[in-house]
Amino acid sequence: MPIQAYAAKAPKGRLEPFSYEPGPLGPREIEVKVTHCGICHSDQAMVDNDWHFSTYPLVPGHEVIGTVAALGAEVRGLALGQRVGVGWQCGSCGECEYCRRGRETFCAKERDTIVSHHGGFAERVRADGNFAIPLPANLDPAQAAPLLCAGTTVFTPMLHHGVTGNTRAAVVGIGGLGHLAVQFLAQLGCEVTAISSTHDKDEEARSFGAAHFIATKGTDELKKAAGRFDFILNTVPADLPWGDYLAALRPEGKFVIVGVPESDLKLPAMALIGQEKSVCGGRTGSPAEIAAMLDFAARRGVKAQIEKYAMKDINAALDRVRTGKMRYRVVLEA
Amino acid sequence: MPIQAYAAKAPKGRLEPFSYEPGPLGPREIEVKVTHCGICHSDQAMVDNDWHFSTYPLVPGHEVIGTVAALGAEVRGLALGQRVGVGWQCGSCGECEYCRRGRETFCAKERDTIVSHHGGFAERVRADGNFAIPLPANLDPAQAAPLLCAGTTVFTPMLHHGVTGNTRAAVVGIGGLGHLAVQFLAQLGCEVTAISSTHDKDEEARSFGAAHFIATKGTDELKKAAGRFDFILNTVPADLPWGDYLAALRPEGKFVIVGVPESDLKLPAMALIGQEKSVCGGRTGSPAEIAAMLDFAARRGVKAQIEKYAMKDINAALDRVRTGKMRYRVVLEA
Repeated sequence: MPIQAYAAKAPKGRLEPFSYEPGPLGPREIEVKVTHCGICHSDQAMVDNDWHFSTYPLVPGHEVIGTVAALGAEVRGLALGQRVGVGWQCGSCGECEYCRRGRETFCAKERDTIVSHHGGFAERVRADGNFAIPLPANLDPAQAAPLLCAGTTVFTPMLHHGVTGNTRAAVVGIGGLGHLAVQFLAQLGCEVTAISSTHDKDEEARSFGAAHFIATKGTDELKKAAGRFDFILNTVPADLPWGDYLAALRPEGKFVIVGVPESDLKLPAMALIGQEKSVCGGRTGSPAEIAAMLDFAARRGVKAQIEKYAMKDINAALDRVRTGKMRYRVVLEA
Repeated sequence: MPIQAYAAKAPKGRLEPFSYEPGPLGPREIEVKVTHCGICHSDQAMVDNDWHFSTYPLVPGHEVIGTVAALGAEVRGLALGQRVGVGWQCGSCGECEYCRRGRETFCAKERDTIVSHHGGFAERVRADGNFAIPLPANLDPAQAAPLLCAGTTVFTPMLHHGVTGNTRAAVVGIGGLGHLAVQFLAQLGCEVTAISSTHDKDEEARSFGAAHFIATKGTDELKKAAGRFDFILNTVPADLPWGDYLAALRPEGKFVIVGVPESDLKLPAMALIGQEKSVCGGRTGSPAEIAAMLDFAARRGVKAQIEKYAMKDINAALDRVRTGKMRYRVVLEA
């Protein structure tokens, strides 16, 4: 049965109704009936071909919440009608070193939900059964949708870099990713500093759990924070004063980037060497890590603050994302 | 009693005989009678004021081997006549968070052997007792001298980044630091690749334990090594093709710099993010880490390959270091 979706037909194109025939369901695949789908910055980047690997027609949407509508013969552990989430990655080989040790994000044959595959701005979407993560019962599906990409993108670096309650943490950029990062860090027991260009989001950041707030634009607040943080998570897709941020780290501090800056990072070597500081890349988690993140979010009350749109108003919703003014994440409802 | 030493009187000056009065021995200090002292690239950099914090007259020398000649009243665990080593750091506050957890290198009041303090190109040198590391009996003192700075500088990052026998490792630059790094990694059980500009040192690198050798100058050998290494230790004080080196890392791979490049590092962000790679600074270890390194070197036969000079031939020795052609470390004998 054909799937009704919304697709961009060319780079920077408007989304238009689009129908495609998904073909026979693979033995390891499932089909998810979409109830909600978040809109991520990377959906917009893929529509616009910012990263030069988009293929068209392109159906965006990789923060999917829905129910299992069809199950391949070899899929285990899922039931028809069960509520699941699907994120950026929708498949992997299942056999390589990385798949075997639960780090499927590094599988050389990994498949992504909106890269040469049709995503969640649709009535239904396909994924490998392993990449459909059961949703804890007490999570609101609309507020949970952004966790499938934004949530795991900020939580996975906390897992991989061993963030604990004693980690002095900062989050750069209080947006879709940042407002979740502040919540996760606060719920992990950290003293959290929110960093933004102005103090506009000061009060909201504190409501998410920030203990401190630094505004960078036209102030010396960042320079005054020298030597304060063990872990800085940068969610901003822009060039930053790297030297000031390295100076803001404590010994052995880590500056983790999940936002992609416009240009190469320019790092003064001595600022890394003198106190064994690191600059690290971060990305979404494996299925097991996404499940751990959802479990933590459900137990600790981490949820996206969202603006809802009906799926049919997809272009208005995407325009809203393009303004960057949403607080803090846009979610489509079927 | 005045100490006879060799000092530079001004930036880039020749070393001249110099006598100074060290004053009364502090209760936590010891005095070491120097028998051997390695010459490090940073001795030359400090003589030349390359890092803009040299003070003159400057007595270089921070790879000291000698015997305890005097002990302050509060020094414990050392005996007169005992053979010890003193490296880059010669003191710390002993009370801060970092001193209390054995990471004295990060003490805000740390004191360095040749920074506003007279070093080991001398008959005697002072240090806090905690920073005089007993030398294992079966280490040759001349071959052990370079371990006090070059050795700990390459070994400490291996400790801090959890290098194991399964770590696929590479060393960039087969010189004073690099020839020790290859030995340490090989003795830790790693498959080691030596990376140098040409194949001149291919055979020697293999004798140190390298399994593979990559020459970078005018070849595509580095590009062909894409995705091969978990841990790359860069000992070269020069700008490098950072993108190629990041590409040579495996997922979660770490590129650790201990050599200071001439310019800022320029790192393509996507090369960090896609596979969670890191660029990290490394430096010398704490006293406990230097002791662990010396113990390992003694048990596993790691030793510097050296060229010996008499202390009185200090300027000829330093000229030899300036050529960069020594294989691989110059050591002065009293």
